[in-house]
Amino acid sequence: MITSIEWTGDSLKIIDQTEIPTQLVYKELKNIQEVFEAIRKLRVRGAPALGVAAAFGLYLGLKDEKLGNQAQVMRRAKELASYLAQARPTAVNLQWALQSIINQVSHSERSGQETVRAFLQEALAIQEDDRDRCRRIGENGASLLKDGMTVLTHCNTGALATAGIGTAFGILYTAHQQGKKIEVYVDETRPLLQGARLTMWELKQADIPAVLISDNMAAYAMRKKNVDIVIVGADRIAANGDVANKIGTYSLAIAARYHDIPFFVAAPLSTFDLSLPTGDSIPIEERAGEEVSRIWEKLSITVPGATCWNPAFDVTPAELIHGIVTEEGIFTPPFEKFIQHLTQHNYQNQEEYHL
Amino acid sequence: MITSIEWTGDSLKIIDQTEIPTQLVYKELKNIQEVFEAIRKLRVRGAPALGVAAAFGLYLGLKDEKLGNQAQVMRRAKELASYLAQARPTAVNLQWALQSIINQVSHSERSGQETVRAFLQEALAIQEDDRDRCRRIGENGASLLKDGMTVLTHCNTGALATAGIGTAFGILYTAHQQGKKIEVYVDETRPLLQGARLTMWELKQADIPAVLISDNMAAYAMRKKNVDIVIVGADRIAANGDVANKIGTYSLAIAARYHDIPFFVAAPLSTFDLSLPTGDSIPIEERAGEEVSRIWEKLSITVPGATCWNPAFDVTPAELIHGIVTEEGIFTPPFEKFIQHLTQHNYQNQEEYHL
Repeated sequence: MITSIEWTGDSLKIIDQTEIPTQLVYKELKNIQEVFEAIRKLRVRGAPALGVAAAFGLYLGLKDEKLGNQAQVMRRAKELASYLAQARPTAVNLQWALQSIINQVSHSERSGQETVRAFLQEALAIQEDDRDRCRRIGENGASLLKDGMTVLTHCNTGALATAGIGTAFGILYTAHQQGKKIEVYVDETRPLLQGARLTMWELKQADIPAVLISDNMAAYAMRKKNVDIVIVGADRIAANGDVANKIGTYSLAIAARYHDIPFFVAAPLSTFDLSLPTGDSIPIEERAGEEVSRIWEKLSITVPGATCWNPAFDVTPAELIHGIVTEEGIFTPPFEKFIQHLTQHNYQNQEEYHL
Repeated sequence: MITSIEWTGDSLKIIDQTEIPTQLVYKELKNIQEVFEAIRKLRVRGAPALGVAAAFGLYLGLKDEKLGNQAQVMRRAKELASYLAQARPTAVNLQWALQSIINQVSHSERSGQETVRAFLQEALAIQEDDRDRCRRIGENGASLLKDGMTVLTHCNTGALATAGIGTAFGILYTAHQQGKKIEVYVDETRPLLQGARLTMWELKQADIPAVLISDNMAAYAMRKKNVDIVIVGADRIAANGDVANKIGTYSLAIAARYHDIPFFVAAPLSTFDLSLPTGDSIPIEERAGEEVSRIWEKLSITVPGATCWNPAFDVTPAELIHGIVTEEGIFTPPFEKFIQHLTQHNYQNQEEYHL
């Protein structure tokens, strides 16, 4: 299994994702500046992975300084957290992760030195927690896959995006580990090509048979290639089960419904945002049009100055979703009954976990 | 209006499509070798445009030679036609066009010199015929568009692909000429990006407001951008109304149905292939996987040696199609009644016109 983020004892070893799929390059980040640079340059990406990297970055920043008592450490931690958060200013998850660690550490009284150590413990805990949730999602979801099945997936949801085996990808990985023969069709996932670059690479590492397609071939693949199931990840899930995920997910869900193919979403419970009644309330980031008009900032594909629309995500209505695979099991419609269960357990979104 | 192919009196002036959208370069082809090279290098492309270019190429080849009587001219014409057909060996349309001209010219007895002139007349006739059919498709289809409408289209169906204003594009062009304000969402159309490169360029030339999107954004655009109608071209239409067109068309038709948005196809009658009962009989060309894994042969986007699936076309079932806009009017379901009309008029597909 690939480990995209590893704590060596005194540094953070990451896979440099900007080099994927051309080569596998590890990079050792020895101080907070190097972590900042790695986040800013997208050497590490994916919501959970970003949170984990930032958590270790915060510790690296603190351990290199001569600090006094707990109050002084905490003050400095807040400064460093603001600094790290600027590496990806729009990545609110990153800020939440850092804030959540600061809150956690400030709960107990400690010496200055113990406080610094506590930041390391929190980083390790977040990493371990993410790894464990991925494992459980993988196990729960693998029950959906039978020997010989053809799966279609979108974007990247694997080890490169998380601290563990991934979410949707983790299901494929687990089923493969269980000895089930599966074949995976992978949407290239324009505009940023995470499917072509990252998921194809991860599938190759895992020795899982994979076929790359352009996004606009997915519906025809469902018709011609006997796709048995579609599994994707999620960025945020509203209280009614509507799912925000990488742009193109909605189109896949509609095509799956037309072909009567089960459409599943895989995500940790932290992805549920119970403050949003429906998907209509989920804010959708619109990114620069140049991501559409210039591939990888390298290849201009249209007339200069062309107007482009570039929503980074879309919202798939709950009515198109057969089930949501979580670390606590597979939720099936009506999703409200599961949401209610989450509410009863007073699940605190973001605060507790969402990185 | 753009004219992608123009007969100057003694040469063929074409727009070099390999330079679009970066710059507008005309190229004057003075002999059959230059026409061959332009076809082979995709400087001219699009089924009707290819047929017209080849027709003029054949005349250019004949006029430069000292030939004897009609029989000798015809013998040489067949040799030159075989030569031209090899420029795009898989482009059967090209071969049909040349064969159809040879058949036509051989019908009447003429002197050698008159025979050569007859080849020019046939080329001009084919060009004029295509131009006229495009114009009529545009007029018929423009009735579908009201002021203020948002249209979504796919691939390239304009002046660059035909000798006239195009098919689906011709409808947009005609409506715009009629003073209707329309806005067009354009699928980039992976893998070969004809939408981003060619359609965006043609819309800019025509001063029609356009927005480029990645193919996987189309369904979300239908939901969020109030798309009123989808109009696409066709490569072949079966006797039951099933339509083969550029890959991604099927996905669009499914999404349009989900959003209750009318989905129209625009194509000349020559596109109907009555010998095929349904779309299942339409042979679908699968092209090299490298078109998916390496964009424009320039940018590798996935792991080396990745398996790719690359169907160049897909088939949209008639049940998803609201209407087919032809030069004879708009066919609406059930398409069989129109097909029957075509049969009664003994419409000869390919032989008569399909280039």
